[in-house]
Amino acid sequence: MNDHWYMQRALDLAAAMEGQTSPNPMVGAVVVKDGRIVGTGAHMGAGGDHAEVHALKMAEGCTDGATMYVTLEPCNHHGRTPPCAKQIIEAGIARVVVAVKDVNPEVAGSGIEALRNAGVETEVGVLAEKAAKLNATFFHYVQTGKPFVTVKTASSLNGKMATPKGLSPWITGEAALEDVHQLRHIHDAILVGVGTVIDDDPALTTRLEIGGRNPIRVVLDRYLRTPSDAQLVTDGKAPTWIFTEESPKSKNASVLEQKGVRVNSLPTVTPKKVLAELGRADIQSVLVEGGKTIISAFIAENEVQRYISYVAPKLFSADTAMELEVEYAQMVGGDIKITATAKKGDASCLQG
Amino acid sequence: MNDHWYMQRALDLAAAMEGQTSPNPMVGAVVVKDGRIVGTGAHMGAGGDHAEVHALKMAEGCTDGATMYVTLEPCNHHGRTPPCAKQIIEAGIARVVVAVKDVNPEVAGSGIEALRNAGVETEVGVLAEKAAKLNATFFHYVQTGKPFVTVKTASSLNGKMATPKGLSPWITGEAALEDVHQLRHIHDAILVGVGTVIDDDPALTTRLEIGGRNPIRVVLDRYLRTPSDAQLVTDGKAPTWIFTEESPKSKNASVLEQKGVRVNSLPTVTPKKVLAELGRADIQSVLVEGGKTIISAFIAENEVQRYISYVAPKLFSADTAMELEVEYAQMVGGDIKITATAKKGDASCLQG
Amino acid sequence: MNDHWYMQRALDLAAAMEGQTSPNPMVGAVVVKDGRIVGTGAHMGAGGDHAEVHALKMAEGCTDGATMYVTLEPCNHHGRTPPCAKQIIEAGIARVVVAVKDVNPEVAGSGIEALRNAGVETEVGVLAEKAAKLNATFFHYVQTGKPFVTVKTASSLNGKMATPKGLSPWITGEAALEDVHQLRHIHDAILVGVGTVIDDDPALTTRLEIGGRNPIRVVLDRYLRTPSDAQLVTDGKAPTWIFTEESPKSKNASVLEQKGVRVNSLPTVTPKKVLAELGRADIQSVLVEGGKTIISAFIAENEVQRYISYVAPKLFSADTAMELEVEYAQMVGGDIKITATAKKGDASCLQG
Amino acid sequence: MNDHWYMQRALDLAAAMEGQTSPNPMVGAVVVKDGRIVGTGAHMGAGGDHAEVHALKMAEGCTDGATMYVTLEPCNHHGRTPPCAKQIIEAGIARVVVAVKDVNPEVAGSGIEALRNAGVETEVGVLAEKAAKLNATFFHYVQTGKPFVTVKTASSLNGKMATPKGLSPWITGEAALEDVHQLRHIHDAILVGVGTVIDDDPALTTRLEIGGRNPIRVVLDRYLRTPSDAQLVTDGKAPTWIFTEESPKSKNASVLEQKGVRVNSLPTVTPKKVLAELGRADIQSVLVEGGKTIISAFIAENEVQRYISYVAPKLFSADTAMELEVEYAQMVGGDIKITATAKKGDASCLQG
Ligand SMILES: [Zn+2]
Ligand SMILES: [Zn+2]
Ligand SMILES: [Zn+2]
Ligand SMILES: [Zn+2]
Repeated sequence: MNDHWYMQRALDLAAAMEGQTSPNPMVGAVVVKDGRIVGTGAHMGAGGDHAEVHALKMAEGCTDGATMYVTLEPCNHHGRTPPCAKQIIEAGIARVVVAVKDVNPEVAGSGIEALRNAGVETEVGVLAEKAAKLNATFFHYVQTGKPFVTVKTASSLNGKMATPKGLSPWITGEAALEDVHQLRHIHDAILVGVGTVIDDDPALTTRLEIGGRNPIRVVLDRYLRTPSDAQLVTDGKAPTWIFTEESPKSKNASVLEQKGVRVNSLPTVTPKKVLAELGRADIQSVLVEGGKTIISAFIAENEVQRYISYVAPKLFSADTAMELEVEYAQMVGGDIKITATAKKGDASCLQG
Repeated sequence: MNDHWYMQRALDLAAAMEGQTSPNPMVGAVVVKDGRIVGTGAHMGAGGDHAEVHALKMAEGCTDGATMYVTLEPCNHHGRTPPCAKQIIEAGIARVVVAVKDVNPEVAGSGIEALRNAGVETEVGVLAEKAAKLNATFFHYVQTGKPFVTVKTASSLNGKMATPKGLSPWITGEAALEDVHQLRHIHDAILVGVGTVIDDDPALTTRLEIGGRNPIRVVLDRYLRTPSDAQLVTDGKAPTWIFTEESPKSKNASVLEQKGVRVNSLPTVTPKKVLAELGRADIQSVLVEGGKTIISAFIAENEVQRYISYVAPKLFSADTAMELEVEYAQMVGGDIKITATAKKGDASCLQG
Repeated sequence: MNDHWYMQRALDLAAAMEGQTSPNPMVGAVVVKDGRIVGTGAHMGAGGDHAEVHALKMAEGCTDGATMYVTLEPCNHHGRTPPCAKQIIEAGIARVVVAVKDVNPEVAGSGIEALRNAGVETEVGVLAEKAAKLNATFFHYVQTGKPFVTVKTASSLNGKMATPKGLSPWITGEAALEDVHQLRHIHDAILVGVGTVIDDDPALTTRLEIGGRNPIRVVLDRYLRTPSDAQLVTDGKAPTWIFTEESPKSKNASVLEQKGVRVNSLPTVTPKKVLAELGRADIQSVLVEGGKTIISAFIAENEVQRYISYVAPKLFSADTAMELEVEYAQMVGGDIKITATAKKGDASCLQG
Repeated sequence: MNDHWYMQRALDLAAAMEGQTSPNPMVGAVVVKDGRIVGTGAHMGAGGDHAEVHALKMAEGCTDGATMYVTLEPCNHHGRTPPCAKQIIEAGIARVVVAVKDVNPEVAGSGIEALRNAGVETEVGVLAEKAAKLNATFFHYVQTGKPFVTVKTASSLNGKMATPKGLSPWITGEAALEDVHQLRHIHDAILVGVGTVIDDDPALTTRLEIGGRNPIRVVLDRYLRTPSDAQLVTDGKAPTWIFTEESPKSKNASVLEQKGVRVNSLPTVTPKKVLAELGRADIQSVLVEGGKTIISAFIAENEVQRYISYVAPKLFSADTAMELEVEYAQMVGGDIKITATAKKGDASCLQG
C-alpha cells in the first residue's frame, strides 16, 4: 500500500458513477488514518454532496491528522455548501493527495492553494493520467464549452451500415447492442439526423437489464420533417430536442412543441452551432448515432473526440448476407487488420 | 517428443513454402529413426520432388524400419516419377503418420490403402486441423475447381476507401502496406476492376525487402478500356490477363495482345465465370483488391472465402483527414469493437 | 450494467478494506435507484458501522423502492445497533441482492428470511464465488474457530532459506520484501519460533511506504528462551504473545511480562493448540514466517491453508552465491517449472 | 519476407535436431532463389552432411546466384569432405547470410573470409541472439572445454526432495515427468551420485512415447559402492561411466567393468575434474539429477549453467502429504512468488 494504491481506490469509487454525475465530474475520495481507510466517498450527481464531504462524514471522529486521497482538486468556491477545501481544513486533515488539478482556468489551483496556505501538506499528480482520462469528457467540456462527441457506427466488414432488404435490421450481435445501451447510459445526449427518425423511428432509449439513464434525444432537422407520431416525440421517455432552420412559429414547430418537444431554431444547423447550444445547456457528452450525412458533417467540421466502430463479420450486398468468422483482429503498425473467413463445415471428413 | 511434435516439424517445413507450391499443395515430411530425425523435406513447387522424396533422399541408408511423418496423404499415381507410396514402401519405412487424407475424390485414400496393403503401419489424423488449415486454399481449389478468393480492402474508420483530395493516396501505414505485399507473394493471381487501372495505374507487383513472387494480374474489363500504356500492360513484370465481353478480334484487343497481355473474351464477365476460367488455368488463389464495384460483385455472388480489412484510425471527409489513436480493438460477442480517440497533447499540464 | 456489475462495485468497496476489518468480514454495499448509484458503503472495522448502514446513510432520501447490493447476508441480530435487515426494511428498499449467505450456522439465512418476510425481494448468489474467496479467512475462522494460516517462506532456487555467511541476509529483492510487508498488513498475527527470535532478532512489523497495521507477534517458545532484550519484547510497536510450556510464574515469564509481553502457558505447545487459543482471542489470520521447525510442525498437523513461497533465482552453497536469471516460470501440468540460467555477457562478440 | 524471415526458417530447421547433433552444433540452412525457397537442410548428427550441403543438394540446379541463409558460419577446414565454404562458392551462391560466427577461436571468421575472398556477398549477425541461444550448449563447450551443466530438481513447495514414507516416490505429475524425459533426450550425459543409485536404483533412461536418445549415465562414486546388480550396471540400455577415487585394479572395479561399465579413476572426484574428463570425451551437455550432496558440490564449484526446478504444489512432512492448488505463480521483481491454497470443497453451500 502506498499513495498509488489508495488513489486507485479513489478512482474506482469515482468510475463507478460514470454516467450519473454530469454536468459535474466524477470524483472519488478516500480518507486514511494510521494505515486504515476510515472514509470513502464519491460524488454521485448534481445536487448531491461532493466526494470529499461523503468521505469526511463517514470518517467523522477519525479525520484529525489523517490523509485524504481525492481524484480532482477540491473546490474552493462557496455555493450551496461551504467549499471542500475549507471542510478538509476544518476536519484536521494533515495531508491531501490530489490526482489532477481542476482544469477550469478560473478555479484551477485555488483549492490546492487554500490547503497549502492552511498548512495542509498537499501533493498533486498521483495517477494523474488515469484521472484525466476518467474525466476526459468533463475536461473537454470545461475547456471548450462544447460537449465531448462520440460517434458510434455499426457496419458489416464491407462497410455497409444497413442490412439487405428483408433481413433483420440488426447488424451486430446482442453483446454489441447491449454495449451500445451502456454507451447511451453514460451520455447526456444522443444525436441523430431526421433521416434516421423518418426511416427507422427509433426510441433512442437506454435498455439495459437493470435500467439506466435515458439521454436527451437531439434531432438535427433543418426543414422540420420529424413526424409528429415518431416514437421520440410521443413516448415521453426522455426529453427530445430538435434543431431546425425553420421558424419556431411554424405550424410544424407548434405541433411538436405541444407534444413536449423542444424546438430550437438556428439560422444554420451545423455541428459546431448545435454543440455550442448543447454546451450552453450543460450537456457534456453527445453520442452521435447517424446517419451517414450527419456523421460526415461532424467529421468535416473536425468535431469528433471519439469514434466507436462496431464491425460485424458479415458481407452485405443489396440482397445477400454472408456470415464469416473473425480469425484475427490485430494491430499492424498503427492500423487494425481484421481477417475473417467463410464458415466451414468441420474438418472431421479430412481424417481417416 | 511424440507424434504431434514430429508432425509439427513437418508442418513447419510445409508452411515455409507458402506461396511457391501452387498449383500443388504445401507438404512437409520428416523421417525418424531410433529417436533421431534422419531426413526432412518439403515440396518446393511444381516440377520439383515431392516432400516424401526429399526426406527419403536425405535419410538414405537410414530408412529401413523408420517412421515417416507427412502432412498430406502420399500420392499413389504414376507420373513423371514413381508414386510416393511406392517409394516409401521400397525404402522400408515401417510406419507412416499422415495429418490429412487427400481431398481429391479420385485419389483420396488410395495412398493410404497402398501403404497398408504393403504392411506399413499407417495412422491418419495427427494435427489434421492444422494441416487442413494450412492447405485451405488447395483444398478449396480441388473441391470446387475454382481459386480461393481473398478480398482485401483498406479504409478509414468511417469506411472511406480513398483519401481526401490532395493527400497521399496511402490510407494505411507502412507495416500494413508491407503486409499486403506479403499477401501478394502468396497468391497466384491478383484481381482488380478496370476502374482501378484507369484511376490509379497500379503495378500490382510484390515489393518486399528481399523480393517475392509476382502474381498474375487479372483485370475485369467488360468494354476493354484498359489503357495500352498502363503499367501492368507495359512493365513486363508479371503476366497480365484481361477478361472482357469485347471480341478478341477487336482493335483494342490486338493492341493489348501485341504488348503481351492475354485477352480472354467471355459472353458475360462475372466473378463466377472468371473464377471458373482461372481454375481451369490452375490458379488456386486470387487476391481481389478492388474497386468497390468488383468487390460488391464477388459478395453478391457469394464468391468470397476470406476477407481482410485494414482499418486506419482516421476519419476522412471530402477534403479533411483527422488522425485518431486506437484505444481498443476488442471482440464484443462475435463482433469487433474499435475505439479510437482524437490525439491529444500530453497530460503534463494537469499536474501541479 | 446489470446485477453483476453493481455487485462487482460492492466487492471492490469491500476489498479495499482488506486487513482492517478483523475479526469482522469485509463487506461492501451499493444502493441503486432508477439506474443511479445513490449510496455506497463498506465495513471499515470493528466498532464501525456495517456496510449496509454506511450505504443507507449516504443514500438518505433515495432509498424508497431502491435496490441494495451487498456482498454478505445482512445481519439480523440486535447488538449495539439495530440489525441491518431491520434498517434495510425500514428504509423501504424494494430488492436486495446478496452475494453469499453468512456461514455462521446460528445466523445463516436469518437475515435473508427477515427480508423476505417483510416482502423485500431477495436474491442470493450473485458473484458468490468471488465473495466467498474475498472472505476465505473469515469463513475459515467462523467454521473452524481457528485462524486461517498462511505460511510464507523465501528461499534460493536450490531450497536454501539462509544466505551464505558474510552476505546480506536478504534472499529476495526489494519488490518481494515489500510484498511481504503487505502480507503482514493484512494479517492479525505473525508467528515465529523462538529460534528465529534468537538468531535474527526481527521486529516483525509492517514497514510500508505509507504505514500499515502491525500484526500481533506470536512466538512459540516451549522453554521460554526469548531474550528479554529482543526487539519484539522491547520496541513496543505491537503486542507480543509468547506460548510456552514453562510456568507463568517462572522468573523468565515475569521478566517478559513486566516488559509488556503476554506469556501464555500451555501443557504442550503445538500448532493446533496455539491456533485454538488464537481463535479464542478473535484472531482470524496468522502468517507463519519460520523457522523450518515451526513450519514443519504446522505441515505435520495439516494446519496450513495457504503457502506462499518466494524463490530467488540464486544458488547458495555454504559460502558462495550464484545469481541466475529466470528464463521461464511456467505450469507443466499441475506443477511449476522454473528455468534459470547463469548470467552471461552479451552476445555482441558473436556478431561479425 | 525478408532476411529475418528466412533465417527464422533456418533456425527452425536447426532446432528440430535438438539432442541429436552432439558433439556438433545444431545448424540449419535455407537456399532462396528469385523469392522461392529452393533448398533446405539441417545438420542431423555426427557423420552426416553439414546443413549447407543438404540444402545445396536439394537446390541442385538452382544455386547459381541464389542466397543462402545459415545459422552458423560455414566451415572452412578440410575433413572427410570439402569445406562448406568451398562448396558454397562452387555452387555459385551469390550471397550468404550468417546468424553467428563460429566461436572456436582457431576457426572463427575463416569461413566468412573465404566466402568474401571469393566475392560472395556475406552478411553476419541476422538473428544472432537466437542463434547463439540455440547453441548455448555447444558454444559453452567450445569455449570452456567442459560440458554445459543443467541441474534438475523436483521438490515439494516446502523444499522436500523425497515423498513421505509409504507414498509413491513421484513428487511431480505426469506432465513434468515427461518433460524430464525430454530433457534427458537432449543431453549427452546424465549424472548422479552413488547415493541415488543405492537408494533408488534408477534406470536413468529416456522414456518418451516415441522413443528418444539415452544419454550416457555418469555416477560419481568415490568409494566404488555402486551395486553390481544396479539397473544402470546390468540393463545395457546406455553406457554407464563411474568416476571413483578407488584403484581401477580393485576387485569392485573389475566386477563392474566385466559388466560393461567404464570405471574412471581420478585422484579426487570433484565436479570440475569430472567435467574436464567428460569434455575430453566430447560430451557437451550434462544433466545433473541429484542427490543433494552432488548438486551442492556443483554449486559450490560454480559449475552450473542452468537450473531447472520442478515444484509440486504439495507440502510434505515425514509422514504426511498435503495437496494444494497453485493459485498464482508470478514474478515479483526478479523473484518468483508461488501462492498455493489448500483444496476446498466447492462454494455451492454458500449460495442460498
Ligand atoms: Zn467540493
Ligand atoms: Zn508424391
Ligand atoms: Zn449488519
Ligand atoms: Zn561445413
